[in-house]
Amino acid sequence: MARIVHVDDLDDPRLADYLHLRDVQMRLAHESEHGIYLAEGEKVVRRAHEAGHEAASFLMAPRWLDGLRDVLDASDAPCFVMSEKDVERVTGFHVHRGALSAVRRPAPADVDDVLAAARRVVVLEDLVDHTNVGAIFRVAAALGFDAVLLSPRCADPFYRRAVKVAMGAVFSVPHARVDDWYGTPALLSRHGFTTYAMTLADDAVSLEDVGDVPERLALVVGSEGPGLTEHWQRSSDVRVTIPMAAGIDSLNVATSVAVACWHLR
Amino acid sequence: MARIVHVDDLDDPRLADYLHLRDVQMRLAHESEHGIYLAEGEKVVRRAHEAGHEAASFLMAPRWLDGLRDVLDASDAPCFVMSEKDVERVTGFHVHRGALSAVRRPAPADVDDVLAAARRVVVLEDLVDHTNVGAIFRVAAALGFDAVLLSPRCADPFYRRAVKVAMGAVFSVPHARVDDWYGTPALLSRHGFTTYAMTLADDAVSLEDVGDVPERLALVVGSEGPGLTEHWQRSSDVRVTIPMAAGIDSLNVATSVAVACWHLR
Ligand SMILES: C[S@@+](CC[C@H](N)C(=O)[O-])C[C@H]1O[C@@H](n2cnc3c(N)ncnc32)[C@H](O)[C@@H]1O
Ligand SMILES: C[S@@+](CC[C@H](N)C(=O)[O-])C[C@H]1O[C@@H](n2cnc3c(N)ncnc32)[C@H](O)[C@@H]1O
Repeated sequence: MARIVHVDDLDDPRLADYLHLRDVQMRLAHESEHGIYLAEGEKVVRRAHEAGHEAASFLMAPRWLDGLRDVLDASDAPCFVMSEKDVERVTGFHVHRGALSAVRRPAPADVDDVLAAARRVVVLEDLVDHTNVGAIFRVAAALGFDAVLLSPRCADPFYRRAVKVAMGAVFSVPHARVDDWYGTPALLSRHGFTTYAMTLADDAVSLEDVGDVPERLALVVGSEGPGLTEHWQRSSDVRVTIPMAAGIDSLNVATSVAVACWHLR
Repeated sequence: MARIVHVDDLDDPRLADYLHLRDVQMRLAHESEHGIYLAEGEKVVRRAHEAGHEAASFLMAPRWLDGLRDVLDASDAPCFVMSEKDVERVTGFHVHRGALSAVRRPAPADVDDVLAAARRVVVLEDLVDHTNVGAIFRVAAALGFDAVLLSPRCADPFYRRAVKVAMGAVFSVPHARVDDWYGTPALLSRHGFTTYAMTLADDAVSLEDVGDVPERLALVVGSEGPGLTEHWQRSSDVRVTIPMAAGIDSLNVATSVAVACWHLR
């Protein structure tokens, strides 16, 4: 059972995993160095536990202890307790649903293992926005996709904001980061996937006309700014576009994944 | 043509419209009192102008002046110029795409006018998240819905974050806030709309089975936390659900709008 530690000294070095929650760069550096990610809110803390991830510690105001009793009972990690105000002081952040936990990052999954076990994969090229990455995990889980592949520069799905937006789906949907991004279209072929590149290109096939859905399908989307690279557009089996009203530039990338996942279900 | 005003004194009272960009409550109070909203980024500033909205002022670093030359030329408002660092100091915020403009809010549209002119309306009940509101405008505009109705407590579509996420769609999609929320189902009927209430209720019709789309359609979604109120669920013509994989709680509300708008196009 977790050791309850009442903390008065906000400079206590044991709180290191909870500092600067608003500073993305600092957090990403700290978290990768220490092999943790941050679960925020009672629900997400619980889901991390249910996914079998190991808490390094917890941080919460007293009133959250009861609701998370079973999670705390199952852990040996320290649970730092302080007032809500002090939690805010430490983290630099108003924590909405009270509880936080620094959780050990699971070992990265092997790309071949992930692909071998999957039938429908969403492939993300260089998304910069953690909200978009989290939203795509949530929608993939809900609409029957069973894995996510990330390009080397794609935003971290275990970053607090992504975890939160995904409502825990980053724990349940198998995913892997690819090293050799250039070779990934060929890798997907070897694993028997047909790749659909989601694009705004004029000469792409309308989503309405793609016809029968292949047995193994990889849906590839591009980054928020420039969109999908030429290499991927050329190397994909089908380039697919979601027709839009006149005068509209594009859909949000997570929205385009939702529409495509639904249509191809 | 806009008057270029180089500002050295960051306490200059003429900058009042640009303070505390991070403080949602303060901003909403200030903006409603002064009848302005804030356009952020070169693209959004331009779209506000193209929509015929009148700038009260601009604020930007010198390097954005050229790109917005035509917009500035067409305005009589002052354009405050200072270094990027100073812009950040004034606003308390790192402004991503440089330029800002305080824009006069257009007069609220009349609900009956909006409904009379529309065929497909998205109806939002008490959404609290500005990102969701903005995302719904963007998706509605892209997928052929032509108006949005907001409940009295729904988040402000002209709040900076919503405007930004909507990519200008809050300027182009007609929308109105309803006073009498309880009476709105009846109002929609009087205007000839069939209402589809989007819900997670077990006994709702699957989106796949709704059949022919009515000539005038109102798609109603509920708030992020509690979902759609009983009153709306009971008063709607059809309750519709998007089937999800086992173990998934819900879709994000903007995602559910995207899937429904696409399916019912
Ligand atoms: C915001 S868009 C990028 C826009 C970029 N300016 C472009 O021209 O591709 C990000 C990604 O979302 C997907 N996307 C957005 N709207 C789409 C649409 N209407 N059809 C297909 N894919 C879309 C694409 O994968 C795209 O690379
Ligand atoms: C995040 S959900 C609210 C969840 C809430 N706990 C409930 O039980 O309704 C917000 C809104 O999105 C819409 N929504 C989300 N998922 C949906 C689904 N699978 N089918 C239909 N509507 C959905 C509904 O309008 C809902 O009120």
